[in-house]
Amino acid sequence: MSQFDVLCIGNAIVDIIARCDEAFLVDNGIIKGAMNLIDAERAELLYSRMGPAIEASGGSAGNTAAGIASFGARAAYFGKVAKDHLGGVYAHDIRAQGVAFDSAPLDGGAPTARSMIFVTPDGERSMNTYLGASVELGPEDVEQDKVEAAKVTYFEGYLWDPPRAKEAIRLAAAQAHAAGREVAMTLSDPFCVDRYRGEFLELMRSGTVDIVFANESELKSLYETASFEAGLDAIRNDCRLAAVTRSEKGSIAVRGAETVEIAAAPVEAVVDTTGAGDLYAAGFLAGYTAGRGLADCGALGSLAAGLVIAQVGPRPRQNLRQEAEQAGLM
Amino acid sequence: MSQFDVLCIGNAIVDIIARCDEAFLVDNGIIKGAMNLIDAERAELLYSRMGPAIEASGGSAGNTAAGIASFGARAAYFGKVAKDHLGGVYAHDIRAQGVAFDSAPLDGGAPTARSMIFVTPDGERSMNTYLGASVELGPEDVEQDKVEAAKVTYFEGYLWDPPRAKEAIRLAAAQAHAAGREVAMTLSDPFCVDRYRGEFLELMRSGTVDIVFANESELKSLYETASFEAGLDAIRNDCRLAAVTRSEKGSIAVRGAETVEIAAAPVEAVVDTTGAGDLYAAGFLAGYTAGRGLADCGALGSLAAGLVIAQVGPRPRQNLRQEAEQAGLM
Repeated sequence: MSQFDVLCIGNAIVDIIARCDEAFLVDNGIIKGAMNLIDAERAELLYSRMGPAIEASGGSAGNTAAGIASFGARAAYFGKVAKDHLGGVYAHDIRAQGVAFDSAPLDGGAPTARSMIFVTPDGERSMNTYLGASVELGPEDVEQDKVEAAKVTYFEGYLWDPPRAKEAIRLAAAQAHAAGREVAMTLSDPFCVDRYRGEFLELMRSGTVDIVFANESELKSLYETASFEAGLDAIRNDCRLAAVTRSEKGSIAVRGAETVEIAAAPVEAVVDTTGAGDLYAAGFLAGYTAGRGLADCGALGSLAAGLVIAQVGPRPRQNLRQEAEQAGLM
Repeated sequence: MSQFDVLCIGNAIVDIIARCDEAFLVDNGIIKGAMNLIDAERAELLYSRMGPAIEASGGSAGNTAAGIASFGARAAYFGKVAKDHLGGVYAHDIRAQGVAFDSAPLDGGAPTARSMIFVTPDGERSMNTYLGASVELGPEDVEQDKVEAAKVTYFEGYLWDPPRAKEAIRLAAAQAHAAGREVAMTLSDPFCVDRYRGEFLELMRSGTVDIVFANESELKSLYETASFEAGLDAIRNDCRLAAVTRSEKGSIAVRGAETVEIAAAPVEAVVDTTGAGDLYAAGFLAGYTAGRGLADCGALGSLAAGLVIAQVGPRPRQNLRQEAEQAGLM
């Protein structure tokens, strides 16, 4: 028996979330719906212009780990925080969710990463991420025992932004495969895909990655196509399993010749889309590592994504296992 | 013309909010629905037992100031934070809301105050407050120009917990009255009332305080009575104007022989009651300083309280002026 269902690896980021109008994004040159990388100076400038905010632990793979644990599955996390207030908050929150988290914090140097997330009236989030200490994640942070003990090792495409995280991922993927485990990734963001298209395709085609999560715009960016169907055909051939989300249109999972369409969960009002893809992956992987079929995996993903977009913040406050049981999915 | 409608004075506190079940409160000796004062050691212990949390600027009078500004009225705030991360967050959030906040932060010594707020499934919040730097608020923090420029100076009963804040309040009240202004207070918490009953009654009966906000249990605690009506009769004689909230039963404002009953705003689901009383006071005072009648003041209070209890956190994310206009109240 594996000690962990899913090991997640990502940039450890605290979210600072505020609402804004559309004009604010334009006036400040923020690409809507995207993850905009910023430096310390711009972080200070944007914070000075930001409205009243709340702070919540985030980071794409961190949100996924928290979601997996909330489903009652066993999760671990690798990510680099600093020895500062936000780093303490980050470690508290992910451990309090039941996720095994033992990455050594960075002592001295950059502060814990933060992302200023502006949520427009339509619920869309636009992220402005200062990577801070998270860029120090490297191969020395790969805990081999946890990689070998996890059914799936899952990481963010965002990890291609810092300099040495990709070395950590290649090391972890090799360890996972040597132990007979699987490796999954999320494409993270269409602009991130654009920055690392060749490397992401190589990860998939070389078999370094078995399972890929993407949304529609990331898929189209990956294959530089305007056709969703063309993208789906391509990704079907490039990895063993792919799950592609399409917001209110639901999601599609493809595995070889198998294609499963999954409906989105009904949501009364979209408050804040932060974490939608992360929580879809959480539900999907919670189901997948429990040996469920693709339709069930997708339904669990839709459930979790539907809950997180109906609230402010990147991790649902509900117990996802209870929610899944009430919905008849577990 | 006054430069400010309301000057608010209170303990400057960042809220750390998590959900818990009823058993957690019992197991940890937390008085449900109350503000429990804790020291640094217990703060660390409770945090280690707390689930995943979000952080949001709070503090009773700080929430009221933010609410008043959100209604488009002009607010100022006195409160003591430390020169640390949370202090920076606190100052950012209240200024970003448009509140004038210039209290000098404490350099060295205790960290910024924080309150661990546990929200049970019924939406009730139980607070555990480590006062930290906020206890250093004293008469030297009273900015006389702001007191004189504010139509109403409003403060929390909670300020009787730290050692020298009451000196600041007596000084500010004298300055306010000398400038022809009014002074308001909230009774804050039934246990706080129990600690300082005599002093609170003296503030009212001496005319140091003109306007009192209370909820039903605070009113009963103040007069040591089980009868709401007896409490209402008593407070009518002890201050010029009182507004008493009764949760879903609405509120009652009394001024001399005048009595106005105000309905609660309809709320679909109570998510987190944190800030309910603070936001009621915000709406009431926004109306009062605009010269509105008691029924209108109460309706604005009910509106703001209804919005804040339907979300997590102590300050509504909506623009309260827009909400009031949509509701036909402004």
